[in-house]
Amino acid sequence: MDTAKETRTSTSSWRISMEKMNEDLEQERQRCSFEPLELTHLLDGTPEKTMQRREREEYFLRDPELLDKTPAKYKSHKEVYEDAVRKGCLILKKVQELHNMGKGDMDVFSQVLGGTLGSAILKDGNPLTLHWVMFIPAIMGQGTVEQQGHWISRAWSCNIIGTYAQTELGHGTFIRGLETTATYDPATEEFILNSPTLSSYKWWPGGLGHTANYAVVVAQLYTNGHCKGIHPFIVQLRDEETHEPLSGIKIGEIGTKLGMNATNNGFLGFDNVRIPRENMLMKNSKVLQDGTYVKASNDKLTYGTMMFVRVVLVRDIAKYLSKAATIAIRYSIVRKQGQIKSDGPETQIINYVTQQYKLFPHLATCFALSWAADWIWEMYNNVTAELDEGELDRLPELHALACCLKAVASSDGAMGVEQLRLSCGGHGYTDASNMPATYGLVTAICTYEGENTVLLLQTARYLVKAWKQAVSGEALPPTVKYLELLSRKIKQRPWKNTLTCIVRAHQAVAAGKIKQATDNMDRRIHCGLSPEDAWNETSIELAQAAESHCRAFIVLRYVETVKGLSSSISKSLNDVLMQMCELYVIYWILHRLGDFLRFSCLNNDDVPSLQTRLEKMLMAIRRNAIGIVDGLDIRDEILGSALGAYDGNVYQRLYDEAMKSPLNQQSVNESYHKYLKPFMKSNL
Amino acid sequence: MDTAKETRTSTSSWRISMEKMNEDLEQERQRCSFEPLELTHLLDGTPEKTMQRREREEYFLRDPELLDKTPAKYKSHKEVYEDAVRKGCLILKKVQELHNMGKGDMDVFSQVLGGTLGSAILKDGNPLTLHWVMFIPAIMGQGTVEQQGHWISRAWSCNIIGTYAQTELGHGTFIRGLETTATYDPATEEFILNSPTLSSYKWWPGGLGHTANYAVVVAQLYTNGHCKGIHPFIVQLRDEETHEPLSGIKIGEIGTKLGMNATNNGFLGFDNVRIPRENMLMKNSKVLQDGTYVKASNDKLTYGTMMFVRVVLVRDIAKYLSKAATIAIRYSIVRKQGQIKSDGPETQIINYVTQQYKLFPHLATCFALSWAADWIWEMYNNVTAELDEGELDRLPELHALACCLKAVASSDGAMGVEQLRLSCGGHGYTDASNMPATYGLVTAICTYEGENTVLLLQTARYLVKAWKQAVSGEALPPTVKYLELLSRKIKQRPWKNTLTCIVRAHQAVAAGKIKQATDNMDRRIHCGLSPEDAWNETSIELAQAAESHCRAFIVLRYVETVKGLSSSISKSLNDVLMQMCELYVIYWILHRLGDFLRFSCLNNDDVPSLQTRLEKMLMAIRRNAIGIVDGLDIRDEILGSALGAYDGNVYQRLYDEAMKSPLNQQSVNESYHKYLKPFMKSNL
Repeated sequence: MDTAKETRTSTSSWRISMEKMNEDLEQERQRCSFEPLELTHLLDGTPEKTMQRREREEYFLRDPELLDKTPAKYKSHKEVYEDAVRKGCLILKKVQELHNMGKGDMDVFSQVLGGTLGSAILKDGNPLTLHWVMFIPAIMGQGTVEQQGHWISRAWSCNIIGTYAQTELGHGTFIRGLETTATYDPATEEFILNSPTLSSYKWWPGGLGHTANYAVVVAQLYTNGHCKGIHPFIVQLRDEETHEPLSGIKIGEIGTKLGMNATNNGFLGFDNVRIPRENMLMKNSKVLQDGTYVKASNDKLTYGTMMFVRVVLVRDIAKYLSKAATIAIRYSIVRKQGQIKSDGPETQIINYVTQQYKLFPHLATCFALSWAADWIWEMYNNVTAELDEGELDRLPELHALACCLKAVASSDGAMGVEQLRLSCGGHGYTDASNMPATYGLVTAICTYEGENTVLLLQTARYLVKAWKQAVSGEALPPTVKYLELLSRKIKQRPWKNTLTCIVRAHQAVAAGKIKQATDNMDRRIHCGLSPEDAWNETSIELAQAAESHCRAFIVLRYVETVKGLSSSISKSLNDVLMQMCELYVIYWILHRLGDFLRFSCLNNDDVPSLQTRLEKMLMAIRRNAIGIVDGLDIRDEILGSALGAYDGNVYQRLYDEAMKSPLNQQSVNESYHKYLKPFMKSNL
Repeated sequence: MDTAKETRTSTSSWRISMEKMNEDLEQERQRCSFEPLELTHLLDGTPEKTMQRREREEYFLRDPELLDKTPAKYKSHKEVYEDAVRKGCLILKKVQELHNMGKGDMDVFSQVLGGTLGSAILKDGNPLTLHWVMFIPAIMGQGTVEQQGHWISRAWSCNIIGTYAQTELGHGTFIRGLETTATYDPATEEFILNSPTLSSYKWWPGGLGHTANYAVVVAQLYTNGHCKGIHPFIVQLRDEETHEPLSGIKIGEIGTKLGMNATNNGFLGFDNVRIPRENMLMKNSKVLQDGTYVKASNDKLTYGTMMFVRVVLVRDIAKYLSKAATIAIRYSIVRKQGQIKSDGPETQIINYVTQQYKLFPHLATCFALSWAADWIWEMYNNVTAELDEGELDRLPELHALACCLKAVASSDGAMGVEQLRLSCGGHGYTDASNMPATYGLVTAICTYEGENTVLLLQTARYLVKAWKQAVSGEALPPTVKYLELLSRKIKQRPWKNTLTCIVRAHQAVAAGKIKQATDNMDRRIHCGLSPEDAWNETSIELAQAAESHCRAFIVLRYVETVKGLSSSISKSLNDVLMQMCELYVIYWILHRLGDFLRFSCLNNDDVPSLQTRLEKMLMAIRRNAIGIVDGLDIRDEILGSALGAYDGNVYQRLYDEAMKSPLNQQSVNESYHKYLKPFMKSNL
């Protein structure tokens, strides 16, 4: 590919208001050994897709009505919410317009309502997101054809706004424990909803506080005197004209949080609220007019949505991390601090190897997660296609992989964003860096859609089973196939610093930890513990085994993806991607060194060469770091950071951001006259 | 000690408004094997000191004028600041009153102005803190007797309010790089202050934005055409009557941050601002009337304050972590989620071993840090007493220890608070948990008062030197004495699971890592690199070596402290402390397992027994967890958390907190009529 000149133009042409460029950044860009735009096209898929994405970003981010004059951080909580409703409506209107022009697929919705584009417009959440992301999909997935006909058109045109109310004040991940009841009354053919305790109040649903007028509510179904477990119901919450809560509905918002303060997370209590029988979503299970309960033919059908969300989240996490890496790397090039040589000038902080060590492993993680996300997305599509044909075989494998990948990605992503924030020193602590808000969004993913430890233990359950199958000689599905070989006692070959050996070592660690946890559990059962208690007492090792399995999967995907690209991209880009890949796989060996010394063929004597190789990779990536983050192609408006903008005018932007503070609009604040002056003069 | 009955009464008597107690908490308390109040007395020093502390807390926390009706999180940034000024004045007034009653020592100031008591009143910072913590001490430490006489009484009575302005927009840790200039003009006997660039603007000082009217400003001194390096100057910023900024002063606040949004961090630029010659703080260096510069006799004298602050911070970190541990452990006892046995009831989440693993190591860290803080505090006092007698010998050792301890404590503390927050699931994400704000305060310490990596490398420099001295047979000071033995090649004894062996192993790891880093640096110099470049290229290993050294110090202090207490406290309490100690030392072996397999006598085969022992310690601590956090004796007002209150009424408190939201004061928000309704009806 020799399109360097043409593509350089194209990189800069869409960047409006590119004022004077920081000189250090400019020099760095000239030193790059590869063409960032090639990376951009690779990540988007094709040059056309890059163009489409940029057009879409332009469409949303250049709308003057969506720009902030006063940043939300200076406003009161109430003002933040009110402005979020205004913007949320505008965004949905624009989405509908795109749709009418034939340009709006579900992809647009998910980007504008969640993800990095969405958080560029509404930095701290959108009270209307769950309407599209949960309310409509719940009706689509769990409603009958008639129910879909009745509700979807009203929801699609936003004639009603809904949310999805499952979690309760006292009940989260363990949904069987939900307390809200829906009791069928055959006399009136209605369900009667109640919140028997305070802990049964619905708690957390986005938009529930003051925005939605409908909700899909998950409740324990009682009919003919028997509890039939949890089921979904469509419930009207507020009057369609006045928006006043309906009788028996106790509703409000749950208060401020670490982040997402504009999402209007709400609570909801029921006091004998009656809804028609038809409002139970009956695609799966049903209640007939006389109260007869008809059970769904297959429980697993509802797993689909849950896995879909987890799969999508992995990609979102990669994007948040990419944002933070872009900000921290650009800032580390511009920022000068201290001297490497005592007679030299102050140096760019990116020249410190300790700083590189804080930056580049997380940059490498962005690609690790992106490619793992691509792969599981394809697997998800294959498995759901099989599902539609009644084929359930690969469902447990997909479920096990989605669980651990969501957990590891969110945990690595949150830790990565936070370390990148800390790498920016004091300025990383300011909201103007946009690092705190980015952390707020990504750390939330550690908890929602399945708490991470719970998810890891679900994967572990699958792995223990797979291990036992492997030991007894059964064939295993692709993502655990490596256990077949490793369950047999094979003499390990001596360590080599090759990617093949490194991938095998990661798998050997995973297998070793799965075996160890399984053995320990069996030992405990052998000693008389019940299987459940043995599981609990072994759960630290079980969770760690699931993490190692996930890491081995990510490492394998990383190596195979980069190797697979070698024929379709330039050598210069391939070299860069290979360096990042090597950095990632070695970083995790050194970070889990004990495991590798115990379970792989790595020996004490092999460690120094790995450390040296890590340091070499840092040095190699150093040269191209700016090119890599430029290639991620995240617009300034999406970065939303004074430290990370393309032009590198860090200090001017920090100053400009400070000047937006309402406190800075007056030279003397009234608190001086009211409190400070009387106090200062009182001791004279 | 058989005072169980008496002390129990005394534990509860001061807890007002103790409504219905959560039953699970009550049961847990009855099951404890030791008396929490004994722990409280131990931590405070004596029963009398416990009483004094409680009285002081009562004095500040029961003042109705200091209570919040609307939590700050719901207010605008401007309102938050204004209320902080009001409260800040009230707090200072109360401090002065205490002082007049003869009860107010510096200890009170530091507790009320910083630390956990201060953050219970002003949850997100106090704009007047730096006046006491930095402005007055700077004048005391660096002013002549005449200067102290002139300024201190005005500052003490709050007739003027000051701050300390050192950090600049473009310059932090590397203070020699500061750009602000103070040029002496012998004609008028004045200094002329200037900010030659935007990056030279002072940036960050607390209270600088709109609160202080004076500041100690650190600037590059120019006299007779020569730069003499950085020196401190007292500069008036605002008119003493009108509070308007003086001519040539450009001043304001820097905007919102991750935390501490009421501290009024400010910026400050100078345009030919003239101050009298007498305003240079001249205890050390001087400028005479004719401009002659007289250099200080000893540079190291100014190190004192810096080290003082770092030593104090370690104790603050321990307290923040104690707060978070109390909240998370009480919540984990109250919260029920899921089943361990499928036919059993929902279980308290503290029964999950994975949850214990998230909680107890951080609880153990509270004590590790407290005792390390006590020890370095004593060392600090000894060394400064020696300093006053001109004895500088132990200064480098103290400096090296203070650097790494501040870094490791803040890093462990921040990570601990965050993991404890995550252990509370979704509710940990709410501000009502008070976990986000606690994290905001503790993570800031990773950056201020010396960025952590910079500090670790300062310690590393000392350790490399010490290692070389050890190798050449020189005697070393106490905190690095272990290197003497380990620098000789001694055959290591086989591993034993004893505390003695574990402490030695931690030291062996530190020595091994120091040796490895030193060797690698020397190797690089041998290959032709300059010492500075070799240092930089080895800095990842150097920083890690400093961390291991610090860990070995903490571990030794922990073990010796608990052993030393055995004769003065009850066996039941000593057992509990010993369990915590064991948990801590084993946790860090398993967390840095690679290091121990490489550098200590631990072998692969020894690892399973350590894992088992860790799990046993978790189980042992499980029984007494509530007693330990009760013994930390942190009042509900200081915890400030719906999840962590003494009575365990988690759900009622979460609900009550939510009801304080201004959004919940109206059933329909006006944004419905303004934006939402028109939008919803537009597609009909």
